[in-house]
Amino acid sequence: MLRWDDLTFTDFRDRVTDRTVAIWPIGILEEHGPHLPLATDAIQAEWGCERLARREGTLLLPPLRYGNGLATAPYPGTISLKFDTVRAVARDVLSELGRQGVRRAMVVSGHLGADHMRALRLAAEEALEERPAMKLAVLSDWEIVYELRGKPGWEEIPADDGHAGTLETARMLAIAPELCRMERAPPHVPKADIPEFRVTLGLDKHYPSGVLGGDARRATAALGHRVNEHVMRRMDAVLDGLIREG
Amino acid sequence: MLRWDDLTFTDFRDRVTDRTVAIWPIGILEEHGPHLPLATDAIQAEWGCERLARREGTLLLPPLRYGNGLATAPYPGTISLKFDTVRAVARDVLSELGRQGVRRAMVVSGHLGADHMRALRLAAEEALEERPAMKLAVLSDWEIVYELRGKPGWEEIPADDGHAGTLETARMLAIAPELCRMERAPPHVPKADIPEFRVTLGLDKHYPSGVLGGDARRATAALGHRVNEHVMRRMDAVLDGLIREG
Amino acid sequence: MLRWDDLTFTDFRDRVTDRTVAIWPIGILEEHGPHLPLATDAIQAEWGCERLARREGTLLLPPLRYGNGLATAPYPGTISLKFDTVRAVARDVLSELGRQGVRRAMVVSGHLGADHMRALRLAAEEALEERPAMKLAVLSDWEIVYELRGKPGWEEIPADDGHAGTLETARMLAIAPELCRMERAPPHVPKADIPEFRVTLGLDKHYPSGVLGGDARRATAALGHRVNEHVMRRMDAVLDGLIREG
Amino acid sequence: MLRWDDLTFTDFRDRVTDRTVAIWPIGILEEHGPHLPLATDAIQAEWGCERLARREGTLLLPPLRYGNGLATAPYPGTISLKFDTVRAVARDVLSELGRQGVRRAMVVSGHLGADHMRALRLAAEEALEERPAMKLAVLSDWEIVYELRGKPGWEEIPADDGHAGTLETARMLAIAPELCRMERAPPHVPKADIPEFRVTLGLDKHYPSGVLGGDARRATAALGHRVNEHVMRRMDAVLDGLIREG
Amino acid sequence: MLRWDDLTFTDFRDRVTDRTVAIWPIGILEEHGPHLPLATDAIQAEWGCERLARREGTLLLPPLRYGNGLATAPYPGTISLKFDTVRAVARDVLSELGRQGVRRAMVVSGHLGADHMRALRLAAEEALEERPAMKLAVLSDWEIVYELRGKPGWEEIPADDGHAGTLETARMLAIAPELCRMERAPPHVPKADIPEFRVTLGLDKHYPSGVLGGDARRATAALGHRVNEHVMRRMDAVLDGLIREG
Amino acid sequence: MLRWDDLTFTDFRDRVTDRTVAIWPIGILEEHGPHLPLATDAIQAEWGCERLARREGTLLLPPLRYGNGLATAPYPGTISLKFDTVRAVARDVLSELGRQGVRRAMVVSGHLGADHMRALRLAAEEALEERPAMKLAVLSDWEIVYELRGKPGWEEIPADDGHAGTLETARMLAIAPELCRMERAPPHVPKADIPEFRVTLGLDKHYPSGVLGGDARRATAALGHRVNEHVMRRMDAVLDGLIREG
Repeated sequence: MLRWDDLTFTDFRDRVTDRTVAIWPIGILEEHGPHLPLATDAIQAEWGCERLARREGTLLLPPLRYGNGLATAPYPGTISLKFDTVRAVARDVLSELGRQGVRRAMVVSGHLGADHMRALRLAAEEALEERPAMKLAVLSDWEIVYELRGKPGWEEIPADDGHAGTLETARMLAIAPELCRMERAPPHVPKADIPEFRVTLGLDKHYPSGVLGGDARRATAALGHRVNEHVMRRMDAVLDGLIREG
Repeated sequence: MLRWDDLTFTDFRDRVTDRTVAIWPIGILEEHGPHLPLATDAIQAEWGCERLARREGTLLLPPLRYGNGLATAPYPGTISLKFDTVRAVARDVLSELGRQGVRRAMVVSGHLGADHMRALRLAAEEALEERPAMKLAVLSDWEIVYELRGKPGWEEIPADDGHAGTLETARMLAIAPELCRMERAPPHVPKADIPEFRVTLGLDKHYPSGVLGGDARRATAALGHRVNEHVMRRMDAVLDGLIREG
Repeated sequence: MLRWDDLTFTDFRDRVTDRTVAIWPIGILEEHGPHLPLATDAIQAEWGCERLARREGTLLLPPLRYGNGLATAPYPGTISLKFDTVRAVARDVLSELGRQGVRRAMVVSGHLGADHMRALRLAAEEALEERPAMKLAVLSDWEIVYELRGKPGWEEIPADDGHAGTLETARMLAIAPELCRMERAPPHVPKADIPEFRVTLGLDKHYPSGVLGGDARRATAALGHRVNEHVMRRMDAVLDGLIREG
Repeated sequence: MLRWDDLTFTDFRDRVTDRTVAIWPIGILEEHGPHLPLATDAIQAEWGCERLARREGTLLLPPLRYGNGLATAPYPGTISLKFDTVRAVARDVLSELGRQGVRRAMVVSGHLGADHMRALRLAAEEALEERPAMKLAVLSDWEIVYELRGKPGWEEIPADDGHAGTLETARMLAIAPELCRMERAPPHVPKADIPEFRVTLGLDKHYPSGVLGGDARRATAALGHRVNEHVMRRMDAVLDGLIREG
Repeated sequence: MLRWDDLTFTDFRDRVTDRTVAIWPIGILEEHGPHLPLATDAIQAEWGCERLARREGTLLLPPLRYGNGLATAPYPGTISLKFDTVRAVARDVLSELGRQGVRRAMVVSGHLGADHMRALRLAAEEALEERPAMKLAVLSDWEIVYELRGKPGWEEIPADDGHAGTLETARMLAIAPELCRMERAPPHVPKADIPEFRVTLGLDKHYPSGVLGGDARRATAALGHRVNEHVMRRMDAVLDGLIREG
Repeated sequence: MLRWDDLTFTDFRDRVTDRTVAIWPIGILEEHGPHLPLATDAIQAEWGCERLARREGTLLLPPLRYGNGLATAPYPGTISLKFDTVRAVARDVLSELGRQGVRRAMVVSGHLGADHMRALRLAAEEALEERPAMKLAVLSDWEIVYELRGKPGWEEIPADDGHAGTLETARMLAIAPELCRMERAPPHVPKADIPEFRVTLGLDKHYPSGVLGGDARRATAALGHRVNEHVMRRMDAVLDGLIREG
């Protein structure tokens, strides 16, 4: 596996080609209920990227564990960068990839905040405007995971499952069980009654437990493994597209 | 040791006090000669912060391995964030510490670029203007290390030692020998003849080997250990001041 | 119906109360195939807002017919404001509402670009940070419309229907038939094969006809009426929430 | 008459030429005394632009009814965009005109705020720096109207006539009498005693009636028609220059 | 005369009161024909401010000889700061005056560029928004001078007199004759035929001599003295207002 | 001596060559103890630049007496521009030099604030990125002066000498004795006990006298002359490099 961190500059010069795909895991420090660690999103993204980077032709960037999280900012422990800060970091890094001759990149965010994801995609657009020959994919593994709700074969996922709920707890039980405090997992949390399309600044009043829907107690490592394998198949297809395209 | 990453939000709420000192390691991906890895600065800062964070009353933030490096930007593998990007990330993180009730922080940069360090200190000033009760220390371990040149007892350090030279190679031999390719270390590199006070954009024409002065081949792990212990003593005094102050 | 435009400042002072809900239609000039006018999105949003504003307690703002549209920018006739420009206009207007004592607002965008919608919502968040007592809803009628695809009772909508396709053409046939050139409507346009999660700057190479999926020729005014009534019911519920909330 | 709004993208491609002149009316929502509507400036600019656009070779842009108005911001009903917001919208729109091959444009602002007009002209300069081949005219019809004060043949205009006074009320009586509440028009308002060259933030303390000089009650539709014809002759000459120039 | 420059901080503390009026001369380096120096505007503003500052209760700030000058930027020797740079310097200085307890200030610009003047006034508005108790006057002496054209008693001024023409040359002959190269003064320069309301980026093609209208050769020191006395009377009245106001 | 101020634009065109070196003195208004004037830094920089500019091939720019000074901002009389304001002015001026064909420049700041100097150097880097052929030197004369502390032959300088101390007072006694109030000079001021690497916003609590270390009373004009000659030799070498380089 090629890590950007570990290469010398001469290694980089000799081993990076026009077809190399950089893989960049991004997370955030934010509350994930009383039972999951603040770095949960980062841990999941990094786990996925480490597996993607086993593939020939990839180059793993060091993770960024800082992101934008308006919804969870009021909870203890959340660190939320401004929208424009996330955008600036991502734009600079993607633009620097292009300057260094790395024209393909895949950004994997373990955090799915709507502002956060838009900051990353806007940054990718800005990098593309500067360097139109680049090929950039930006996703959150949670865009893949949440599609499973209500799908045949995934009936153990509650329909109202959300942040720090069944799915996220299950994935963490599969990846980093030593960081999960299942004895603290709260009982089922129903979706809060927030008016549709209403813009809000924080969810702490609606969800005091920090679980934003779903039932963390129903999570199992077995479910987590199944979900993670599903995520990896989908992310591998994205990577495949980046590698193969002319 | 308390890691921000690993705490749940309820841990954070219960264990972080008004006297907690956050410790934040910052690095960069930049060339460090043909023999040291691109993440050299990050590795050194993180090593130091891990040791600082063994102390009671501290809280270790996840590292940032992205920084500003104009001088080495032209070499393969360097990723240089813009000045304002480093400043924004640091300002946001320090401001968020204050918002979360963490009023004391120590920022340790393994990278000593003049713009980079100023971006961090400017960010700290901006955070202080917003939250004057905070106590912030910002340093590069290299501000401590380079003072050793010409000091009695440190005669093995060349007077012209610089980036990726004797001192940096020695420190890396002590911390991460498996990442050092000593067989590629270039012979002694004299200081380039850059006119005093001249502003320049890149050093690649002056230093093709990527070593910016000094003799990487003279580095030993033993010297590295001595230097690192010296750095730790000085950084520990800084931390001590932050902890003790009323 | 109360129009902001038509009131004098003394009318405004006398008739606007703490419970007044401002309604703001937003559109864009962008290609909508060879058969629909460039202002299609504006026309739909304004039609809907005119109807919402018949209700007691509302105040209709003048429309904004300029928005952000990266995807259609390469086609003739599209005018795309920058992300930050849309954000600034929306933030200023929403903040001015609050300054003028109008604490409730509903923003209806006829355009559903992902950057465009995020600029509006980010602006609403920024206005809320400044004036937390405001109640703001931001939506695109297309967020409601596209949910109909695949729903029982809506089988005439193609599964791959998109921008300027069956639904949009039908809605325009119901609202402004005189601006529709059905004789130019292209035959069914299948979804282009854009790799999932790939960030792209323009869709003109993928969709030369300007229809981004679906079959404009299958559109009827009758379908348009049904869709529009559905949209109005949903938007009216949003407005209702804003009016009733304490 | 060609309206940007109503064209399809293929119409735009086929009918817009290198000689087309875009015409863009800009207004603001701001107090205009107790007798004129908040959209007064927009209504006047749009009326003028509609007439200009009857001419061959022009293309009418949709209006912008939001502008910058520091002086009237304290009155109920004024919505004042920031200077930089007006500048950004105008710069983006003018730059997009150039990108779309429309190289000639005439911006007509019904509002004459000094900051507002400078924001528009600065935007035009910025667009020209990017696209030097463009030909841009920026004016307020009020720059033309106010020159009439003290001119032979215009003795019915008070020497101290200003915002919402004789001239503006007369023009509105000619254009939109149904929106004028003449029964509320205040008696003659003398110019306030504001020290020369003094910078001030709002005029509400100086002019409680919202008329900033002049006598709204002396306004007649007949005067309004004469003024409007004069404005049209002058604006038509500006348009003529844009159309004829090589 | 009190100069900010010459005071010690204890002098400043002891002698500056709530009624002190700071006087700030601003100029620019820009072409003024072949016969007047590049610093002409600064020289005139500083001359005027030195005289204003003889009055009790004033405090003279050091001059700024850098400004914004789009129109003359293409000529050799012009240095044109960006609009936002002039605005930032002026906003910072005026805001700092307020922070230091100097609540009254008079800004005198010897340069009359429309962007330049608006940048200064916008800065004053921004300073006032932050510190509403300040009293700020912003003017160019040329706003006073140009009113003389066509006035009874000033018949020697050509009707088309402009930048570096009769008036400006006369004023410089009165203030700094040693810097005037009258032997190079060009013959009468008629106004160029620039279409009304057209936005342009530079005047070099229209006015190759650098005189933008008028007849520099008709200038006399006697006229200059008369004009300067007139300017001083008007500026003294402005200062008087600032001093006397409660 | 060639002063930018005094040249006409035709002089500039005729006398400035590709080898001309512009020299730009920069200062600040900030406290310098009870005995030295607020413009002390400007006076020193301008004195030095006037002497540098006696040399053939140089062109003296007008001084800037406004800078960034966080540390002394709380004292009466300090005017501190924001970091980004200093950066913008310097970037614009240096960029304009390049645009006008002046490719070599030497910036001499009499003020040594760390933020201030970085703003100037960052500006120079930004100008170089835009115009890589320029040759720019940026220095503070105090970077040269403070190296003398502890040097053989300079024993009269206290080891803890700082801002407004022995050295600065001596230099001012040599340059502008009429502005020095030696009778107010405070006795020896020891260095304050500020924790190493701690970021602070102002020094007024640590140094009430405004002297930041050293003994102003020990200053003599004779020492000042020696120091100034030393500074001139070093600055002349910098200028020499700029002139000679190909």
